[in-house]
Amino acid sequence: MRDSALAHAYAVIMAGGSGTRFWPLSRRRRPKQLLTLLSKETLLEETVGRLRGFLPADRIFVYTSELLKSACARCLPDIPRRQIIAEPAARNTAPTIGLAAHEILRRDPDGIMIVLPADHVIRKAARFRRALRAACHWASVQGRSVTIGLKPDRPETGYGYIQKGRRAAKLDGEQLFVVGRFTEKPRLETARRYVASGRYLWNGGMFIWRAATLLRNLERATPEMASGLARISAAGGVRATRALRRVFPRLENVSIDYAVMESISDCYVIEADMGWSDVGSWAVVHDLARKDRDGNARPRGSLSLDSRGNMIIAPHKTVVTVGIKNFVIVDTEDALLVADLARSQDVGKAVQELARLGRKGLL
Amino acid sequence: MRDSALAHAYAVIMAGGSGTRFWPLSRRRRPKQLLTLLSKETLLEETVGRLRGFLPADRIFVYTSELLKSACARCLPDIPRRQIIAEPAARNTAPTIGLAAHEILRRDPDGIMIVLPADHVIRKAARFRRALRAACHWASVQGRSVTIGLKPDRPETGYGYIQKGRRAAKLDGEQLFVVGRFTEKPRLETARRYVASGRYLWNGGMFIWRAATLLRNLERATPEMASGLARISAAGGVRATRALRRVFPRLENVSIDYAVMESISDCYVIEADMGWSDVGSWAVVHDLARKDRDGNARPRGSLSLDSRGNMIIAPHKTVVTVGIKNFVIVDTEDALLVADLARSQDVGKAVQELARLGRKGLL
Repeated sequence: MRDSALAHAYAVIMAGGSGTRFWPLSRRRRPKQLLTLLSKETLLEETVGRLRGFLPADRIFVYTSELLKSACARCLPDIPRRQIIAEPAARNTAPTIGLAAHEILRRDPDGIMIVLPADHVIRKAARFRRALRAACHWASVQGRSVTIGLKPDRPETGYGYIQKGRRAAKLDGEQLFVVGRFTEKPRLETARRYVASGRYLWNGGMFIWRAATLLRNLERATPEMASGLARISAAGGVRATRALRRVFPRLENVSIDYAVMESISDCYVIEADMGWSDVGSWAVVHDLARKDRDGNARPRGSLSLDSRGNMIIAPHKTVVTVGIKNFVIVDTEDALLVADLARSQDVGKAVQELARLGRKGLL
Repeated sequence: MRDSALAHAYAVIMAGGSGTRFWPLSRRRRPKQLLTLLSKETLLEETVGRLRGFLPADRIFVYTSELLKSACARCLPDIPRRQIIAEPAARNTAPTIGLAAHEILRRDPDGIMIVLPADHVIRKAARFRRALRAACHWASVQGRSVTIGLKPDRPETGYGYIQKGRRAAKLDGEQLFVVGRFTEKPRLETARRYVASGRYLWNGGMFIWRAATLLRNLERATPEMASGLARISAAGGVRATRALRRVFPRLENVSIDYAVMESISDCYVIEADMGWSDVGSWAVVHDLARKDRDGNARPRGSLSLDSRGNMIIAPHKTVVTVGIKNFVIVDTEDALLVADLARSQDVGKAVQELARLGRKGLL
């Protein structure tokens, strides 16, 4: 039964994101999922790599933007080109997932979709695949929606949380719980309470369900979006470029969490500890990176005198630091960032300012 | 009489220095005197520029190294090429000044030489020229050696000091004192005492004397060096390349201060306040540079968020800083320095380390 569930599983990798927090390394044409932050592979390559031996390449779909499609394809030579799909507009996750569900359903009426962000880090890949296996099994039963909840280790206010309800099952050592509720990014006080209670998990944006289940839930929750998606599908799906370009950009710009997960009742969460991070800032990259004994993550050949806790990226030159602590230094061909690592969340503000000044070449 | 003294005046600009404190902007082939730190001109160009209208170009000599000769010539198109002289080895200031004295004497038995470092800043050029005029006049009288003493405004331990003796004269408003003594770089306590006493001036390495006077003093103080220089001169001077290459590198490596000034008795100092600085580190460049209202000296087009008191040089890219204070950032094609501005004296240590590691391309 489990294997039969896996035989119908399809990955839907969400690779359309844009962001500014990794500027100047990240740019409009090279957002976070296309960066090599912690290994020689981009986060997108790592995301696909984690599915190796779990799903065949012809059941892996990548949804991205027109701007990024070629770059995604270059990074993923093993994925058939027609499975790398460019959306004509950024409409958040719900329209993308709905579109993907139609594509899978067209191919396999019993298709199960595994929705995965392209720009997260998961250190324990085997643990991750075990959770996916259990989730696919559970989702193969009519009508069940499954998500992966990450064990929180700090009161992070940048994430959504999932409240665990009663335990529903144990599968291959994986704990499945009924979802109490999904909550948006909490205030610090609330986040502290959540973590202390032991009853909340982080929402990592990974969802597993039958394509048919998702479409039924979407129909119930947002009938207008569902009918738009049905029109695209009736015209021929993602290859019907005209219909896609006409209808998709007008679909409601909304996340799957908000559109569906918060409104359905039969939802399950697998509690997992898989070395997950959404890698939200340079400070997080520094936490995860390999460091010298002074806590500097820095290129070979750089020189560090009385310097501690720095995150240095400079692929093309020798960096010398003297007496600096807890900095992020990122050097690229046309731009250099030097920031307090604790302020790395504010890098986005600088990029907004560059945009306001019309410095388009730097965005 | 004053004008007649000036008619015999020759500038000897000491442009052979090498240094590491302005790395990575300064390199072996581009030391401080060839950098544009505070204006669009190199310090060497500014040094020559301050003599414009005071001395004709054919009475300005530049002494430098073989490595730097072409670069000096490129910067100074108005100076006749034969007056830009490459020494075959670096032997500190005494041998260079002796060599220059012979060259001047060959041309003008009454020649007065004005020895000037090529890598200092003098903000009040008119004040500087007034002091030089008085010095030339005073030096034209048989046997007098004159130096310019700078009014200290802090207990700097990196400079030599000159003790003022009795006042000897007042010329065009310039105060001339007998020199009590020259002292080497003092300890902080001593420097504090010097400055508080009001009786000490900084030694800026500017000397004015008749060429004949200098040679006589050199003969008395270091007869061996004097005889070596006489041999070079007898062979034809700086154009007698063979003699120069054979003899010059074996002359004693010693400063004019140590070889001559500290041993002669009839020495005078003109007290001057001419906006002088030896520009000894990035911190000094920051002090002297034009700054934004947050105290940042930074390129046009750079972006500075919550950043104060920084010195930023990056001619070829956009620099964004977030939350950093009192740092020096210097970006060049192959190297990037990020250092605590208060530690900018230690930049040299980093360069030593690069040398030890055999990173020759970066030196």
